[in-house]
Amino acid sequence: MTLDVLRALAGEIAIAVSSGQVSARAVTDAALARIATRNPQLNAFTDVTRDRALAKAAVLDAGAAKGPLAGVPFAVKNLYDIAGLVTRAGSKINRDNAAAGDDALVVEKLDAAGAVLLGALDMDEYAYGFTGENVHDGNSLNPHDPSRMTGGSSGGSAAAVASGMVAFALGSDTNGSIRVPASLCGLFGLKPTYGRLSRSGVFPFVASFDHVGVLARAAADLASVYDAMQGRDVADPAQAPRAAERVLPLLGQGASGLRIAVAGDYFRRGGRPECFAAVDAVAAALGATREVVLPAAAAARAAAFVITAAEGAAFHLPRLRERPQDFDAAVRDRLFAGAMIPAESLLRAQKLRAWFHRRVAALFEEVDIILTPATPCRAPLSGQKTIEIEGTEVTVRANLGIYTQPISFIGLPAVTVPLWTEGETLPIGVQIIGPPWREDLVLRVAYELERKGVARAPVA
Amino acid sequence: MTLDVLRALAGEIAIAVSSGQVSARAVTDAALARIATRNPQLNAFTDVTRDRALAKAAVLDAGAAKGPLAGVPFAVKNLYDIAGLVTRAGSKINRDNAAAGDDALVVEKLDAAGAVLLGALDMDEYAYGFTGENVHDGNSLNPHDPSRMTGGSSGGSAAAVASGMVAFALGSDTNGSIRVPASLCGLFGLKPTYGRLSRSGVFPFVASFDHVGVLARAAADLASVYDAMQGRDVADPAQAPRAAERVLPLLGQGASGLRIAVAGDYFRRGGRPECFAAVDAVAAALGATREVVLPAAAAARAAAFVITAAEGAAFHLPRLRERPQDFDAAVRDRLFAGAMIPAESLLRAQKLRAWFHRRVAALFEEVDIILTPATPCRAPLSGQKTIEIEGTEVTVRANLGIYTQPISFIGLPAVTVPLWTEGETLPIGVQIIGPPWREDLVLRVAYELERKGVARAPVA
Repeated sequence: MTLDVLRALAGEIAIAVSSGQVSARAVTDAALARIATRNPQLNAFTDVTRDRALAKAAVLDAGAAKGPLAGVPFAVKNLYDIAGLVTRAGSKINRDNAAAGDDALVVEKLDAAGAVLLGALDMDEYAYGFTGENVHDGNSLNPHDPSRMTGGSSGGSAAAVASGMVAFALGSDTNGSIRVPASLCGLFGLKPTYGRLSRSGVFPFVASFDHVGVLARAAADLASVYDAMQGRDVADPAQAPRAAERVLPLLGQGASGLRIAVAGDYFRRGGRPECFAAVDAVAAALGATREVVLPAAAAARAAAFVITAAEGAAFHLPRLRERPQDFDAAVRDRLFAGAMIPAESLLRAQKLRAWFHRRVAALFEEVDIILTPATPCRAPLSGQKTIEIEGTEVTVRANLGIYTQPISFIGLPAVTVPLWTEGETLPIGVQIIGPPWREDLVLRVAYELERKGVARAPVA
Repeated sequence: MTLDVLRALAGEIAIAVSSGQVSARAVTDAALARIATRNPQLNAFTDVTRDRALAKAAVLDAGAAKGPLAGVPFAVKNLYDIAGLVTRAGSKINRDNAAAGDDALVVEKLDAAGAVLLGALDMDEYAYGFTGENVHDGNSLNPHDPSRMTGGSSGGSAAAVASGMVAFALGSDTNGSIRVPASLCGLFGLKPTYGRLSRSGVFPFVASFDHVGVLARAAADLASVYDAMQGRDVADPAQAPRAAERVLPLLGQGASGLRIAVAGDYFRRGGRPECFAAVDAVAAALGATREVVLPAAAAARAAAFVITAAEGAAFHLPRLRERPQDFDAAVRDRLFAGAMIPAESLLRAQKLRAWFHRRVAALFEEVDIILTPATPCRAPLSGQKTIEIEGTEVTVRANLGIYTQPISFIGLPAVTVPLWTEGETLPIGVQIIGPPWREDLVLRVAYELERKGVARAPVA
């Protein structure tokens, strides 16, 4: 076995397993060993599906048809159904539910593509947070510096991939829950267009914003996992009736010819200098000199807060009524506030969303790609409550999503790519945003940045 | 002049004027004379645009290019902008606004097609009513029996067309405001698919339900007016980006080959026997024996009430705060109630709407047309507050829309056709409903019923 399983990319593992260079069992054993070593410190996993993983590896090694992700170890945020496990969604309350009878549809698809599921991952309670902190399961910690937070809510997903426990992980993203931890943990993260991937078997938060997505250590891995998850699912009413549009074969087209702009105004304020330096480095590497302004982005973010609180509260109302004491106090207070929002405020937020969507869609007639920071800062310390930005102490929890919220608000596809500054031990992400249904464009740009060495995702 | 202008259809007038058989001036004079005779009793018009009409007729008679509606007299509900008039939308408050600078876009289009605008028509205040009663402008009355209501909110529109003052009128329909008065006044009424026609220059009520539409005395007139109003308008964000799909040339295809069903369950209850007899007569004429059930129609209607009240209140909030005493008391009370609806109730109603839309869309994979009553009864007396249905006294105001509300709730195209029972002096309508964007189907069926003599709209 010549493959360094801990550092290998999903694509490399699949080739090695398919060609018989390494057995699925050896890869699975290496992943289990890595989990045993690293998880006690990082707290990425809430469940390890050891028996299932070994059984899957055995089937692969016994000569089953090898899919495009043959033998690739992965894990999923614990709001994805895994047959036989209770889907806790980061909560205490959901632990009283019955175990899931089936895998979530996208987990089924990954299983069918040959990937080996290693377990379920820590997350902010009910996905309502940006820190990766959880009062029931403990905080996930940043592999690049375990005194620091992973970001969230897909915090365990980021920790598992950045530490080499798995080659990729599924997260979910409502306001930034994939892009924020990808930025803080130095990963590539993909939030596809709203309505692209099935959410069947994924515990909801805000139905009109919830996205399924991926964290990995290479743009090509994002593409191959995304490709494996595509396909129509009539059971998810929000899913658009679109045929699969495979992206992996397109990555080699690179970024040349694309009209790339940096987002100005709102997206050049409210962050620490390193986040803007990262955007500038990406723009320079891509030869992007143009600037565009997303109008009323601050209002868009405010409206995203309103809709999140109102929809989240409406969804959780039965639990808020029956078991308020079993919520994380911070989550409960925000949901209570959401339950008291009048319809008129919600309608104004919905109206702004439609307006903002149209205005940004119009921008995409002039450009193909928009660049913004992914987060306003590198990873804060675990438990840190405030951070200084532009001379003011602001709350970490709300501000980590400042640049991601306006984008998921209107469902645009986005990839975050990880940048490292000379002498710095912590990464920071840049958000690459495309027009609706153009995951190919954002992934091509991410791939190009990786090829040029501008973005990289080392194992910690 | 051999044309009986008072009874002539729009299509007949346009041919007569275009061919020089009659002058536009003669038609206009006849309409003005009819208004002078009939309007004092029926109270259909709130403004008569005499000078504009005569000027337009002069231009047509001077040899201007004759459009498909050359010389056809029409009028519009007073929520449509007419250049130089204040758009009162049935209210006292709006009379303090400046006069409109331009016509509403669809009025412009009708003018360009050669139609002659005669004025603005009475309506329920801010379109929030089903009776055609208005405390500021007086009630519009039913031409077939002036002791009876027209229905509303496009009550003046129905009175003007049914009495032969104009050949057609524009109404608007949010929960039934075209279909209810068309039923009570014995007219053909078209509510197109939500998003089909531009609402630019039309005073709103509930943006997510508001439709522009037409009342006329023949299915072909609905089609030609509808065809003249089609066309893309980027200024109305709800308008779908669809090319014009002209319907008039398709009417001759009739109804043969269409799968036609009667709506059962909810749509066979809550009405007086005559409304079901009318549906049965239409079904018999069309050879329709199948029944379909629109699931949870009662819940859909309830959700339509919630969204109407919440969106209406959000829109009117500044006026409710500043001039509550200037509203019709009944409208004000419903808007105040709407302003207190919590976001959670609105979200549940919106969710039900999405679900109901999908379920009914699925029904349209099995059938092409669904038949229901348009109203649960014939025209009540003007001012009548309750009506006996199935042995119970229920409120007129809320119950007139029982069969129309669930349909506009999901934006389906619908035509009402007028039926007359032997020995009865009052008509009642049947609602012909099609799948989204299939105005052609509902108009073909209406045309076929007219051709067979089942539906007819005599001038009163």
